[in-house]
Amino acid sequence: MQELLEIKKMGRQSIPLEKKVSLVSTATVAGPKESLGPLTDYFDRRNSDNIIKENSFEKAEAHMLEESCFLSLGKVGLTPGDIDFFIAGDLLNQIISANICARKLAIPYFGIYGACSTLTEGMSLGTLLIEGGFAEHVLLGTSSHNSTAERQYRYPTEYGYQPPGYSQQTVTGAGAVVLGAGGKGPAVESITIGKVVDPGITDAFDLGSAMSAAAADTIYQHFMDTQRDPSYYDLILTGDLGAVGSKLTQEALANKKYHISSNYIDCGNLLYHSHQNTNAGGSGCATSALVFLGYIYHRMINNELKKVLLVTTGALHSPTTVMQGESIPAVAHALALEV
Amino acid sequence: MQELLEIKKMGRQSIPLEKKVSLVSTATVAGPKESLGPLTDYFDRRNSDNIIKENSFEKAEAHMLEESCFLSLGKVGLTPGDIDFFIAGDLLNQIISANICARKLAIPYFGIYGACSTLTEGMSLGTLLIEGGFAEHVLLGTSSHNSTAERQYRYPTEYGYQPPGYSQQTVTGAGAVVLGAGGKGPAVESITIGKVVDPGITDAFDLGSAMSAAAADTIYQHFMDTQRDPSYYDLILTGDLGAVGSKLTQEALANKKYHISSNYIDCGNLLYHSHQNTNAGGSGCATSALVFLGYIYHRMINNELKKVLLVTTGALHSPTTVMQGESIPAVAHALALEV
Repeated sequence: MQELLEIKKMGRQSIPLEKKVSLVSTATVAGPKESLGPLTDYFDRRNSDNIIKENSFEKAEAHMLEESCFLSLGKVGLTPGDIDFFIAGDLLNQIISANICARKLAIPYFGIYGACSTLTEGMSLGTLLIEGGFAEHVLLGTSSHNSTAERQYRYPTEYGYQPPGYSQQTVTGAGAVVLGAGGKGPAVESITIGKVVDPGITDAFDLGSAMSAAAADTIYQHFMDTQRDPSYYDLILTGDLGAVGSKLTQEALANKKYHISSNYIDCGNLLYHSHQNTNAGGSGCATSALVFLGYIYHRMINNELKKVLLVTTGALHSPTTVMQGESIPAVAHALALEV
Repeated sequence: MQELLEIKKMGRQSIPLEKKVSLVSTATVAGPKESLGPLTDYFDRRNSDNIIKENSFEKAEAHMLEESCFLSLGKVGLTPGDIDFFIAGDLLNQIISANICARKLAIPYFGIYGACSTLTEGMSLGTLLIEGGFAEHVLLGTSSHNSTAERQYRYPTEYGYQPPGYSQQTVTGAGAVVLGAGGKGPAVESITIGKVVDPGITDAFDLGSAMSAAAADTIYQHFMDTQRDPSYYDLILTGDLGAVGSKLTQEALANKKYHISSNYIDCGNLLYHSHQNTNAGGSGCATSALVFLGYIYHRMINNELKKVLLVTTGALHSPTTVMQGESIPAVAHALALEV
C-alpha cells in the first residue's frame, strides 16, 4: 500500500484515478411513458404499465430495481455472490426500494441518499472501493417511480393536479451498473465530489433551478482541479436539470468563462418526445440511470463517444422542511469516463 | 498503488486494515432526557430542552448535528477546510438533518442512509477512503431526535400515545467523529460490512427483534472471517437493540456456539436510568453516537478498553411499506477498534 499521507487528490474536490475501474456492465428497466420515448431502443426492459403485477407502486419500483440489478449481473455472467459490495439509493423515504432490493441480493450493502445524484455518488464510492483495493466488483443500483415520488413529494398522481410549466416529470425506471477492477468497458478517469450548494429556492416544483447552482459549482471545480476546459470532453452530461436548470447551469458557467453549450446535454431533456407533455423534462434517479446507463453507455461502448463527463445532481430537500419554509439544498458529483 | 486484483478482504464480508486510520476526535450533543441519564458526564453539550431556540424540532436536530461536527473539529484544531469528505446520515426522510449540516460545512459530501447503523456505515466508508489513500481526514456525523422521529415513524409525541413495553425510546442527540490518517486515538483494525437480513417482523414497535437477526449475522460473520472468538474483545458493543433485541442477539449467537454475554453490552441499555421509563431502552442514530463517541471513546482513550467491536444496527423499513404489510429489513456493520 502507498504511504497514506500522499493523498491522491487534485485540488480541493477531485481524485485522479488510474483508469483500472471499468463500467463492465449496465442494465436499464423503463416505465411505460419512458418506453414510448425516443430512447426506447436502448432499454433492456420496457414495461407497458407502472405497477407490473405488484400490489403497490412502491413494490413495483423495488421490482424494477431488482430486475435491473440481476440483468446487469447476468450480462457478464456474474451472480450476487461475485459482488463485494452493493451500493444503492432512491428517492423514497428511508430509500426503501434500495433496502428491499438489498434484502433480495444479500450482498454486503451500503445504502446512500443523494436524491437524483445517487448514480454518481454511488459510482464514486464504488470506484474508490475498487481503486483502494477493497473490492473486485461493486454493483450500483438506483430507481425512481412517478407514482411513488409524486405522492411522497407533491400529490398523488390520481388527483390530476396541474404542475407549473417549469416543473419536471418524475421518471419511472431503474438502472444498475457493475463496476469492476480492470474489466472491459469505459473506465473512470477522475471523480469530483460535490459540496452542498443552496441558491435559496423554496418552490419544490422548481428543482431545476435549485440544482443548477450545484451542477455549475461541481463542473467548475472539476475544470479547476483538472486544469481542463470544456472542449476536453466529447460530451458533458448532467442528470436531470431539465430545460430550466440546464439553461441556468450553462449561464452560470459562462459567467465564469466556461462555455459548455456546444458539447453539453441534460438527460432530463432527452428522455421524452415533446408531444409527451412533460413540461421542463424528466427528473428523478432513473433519469440519468436510463439515459446514461442505456443510451450513452451504448455510444461509449461503440466508440462514438470517448470522453464523457457525467454529472448527476440531487435536490436534497424534504417535504417537511419545504413546508417549514426552508430552502432547497442541492449537490452534484462528477465522473470523468474514458473509452 | 497495489495490484488491484489482490483484494484486501478476509472471507466474504470483512476487510483487514493496517491500523493507520484513527478516531482522532469525537463530540457529542445530548437532548434533555439523555442529559439526565447515567452517562451525562461524557457528553460535550447537554441541552435542557429539545428545541434549542429553533422554530421546529427538525431545525433543532440539524442544529445539534452541526454543533457536534464543529465541536469535534475544534477539539483537534481543524476547520471544515481541512476535511476531505463529510459523510452523514440520520433517520429523517431525505436525511434532511445531514443535508442541512452539509450545506453549512461546505465539505465534499456523501449522504448515506442506514438508519441506526449510520455510525458504523459511515465510519466504514470514511476509513476505507483514508486507507485507500483518497483522504487525510473524513468527518462523520449522525443524529436523531425523539420529537422528529416519533412523528415521522409513529405518532407525534404530543398525542401521548402508550407504546408497548417492548418498544424503544428514540434518543435525542448527535455525535461526530473525525477520522484521520495516522493520528492519535483508537485505530480501526478491521471492518465487517453487513448484508440485509429480515426475520419477518411486521410490527414497527418491535425494532429490537427486527434488528437482532442482522446483528447476530454480522457478528457471526466477523468471527468467521477473522477466525476470532468473543474473548478476543474487551467489549462487544451493539448500537440500539435495547432489552429485547440484545437478548435475542445473544441467543442467536449462542445457538452458533458463540457466547458473548460476559463482554457484551448494548448502547440502548446504557443511556437511561430505569426510573426514566423508556421501556426497552434507547434507539435511533444518536444512541450509539452518544454512548460510543462519548462514554466508550473516553474509556478507550484512557486505556480502560483496548479492543472493542462496535456493531450498529439499522431497521430499514419505511412507514409506507409497514402500512403495506411489508416486513422490516435490517442491517448491521461492525468495526473492530484497537488502542
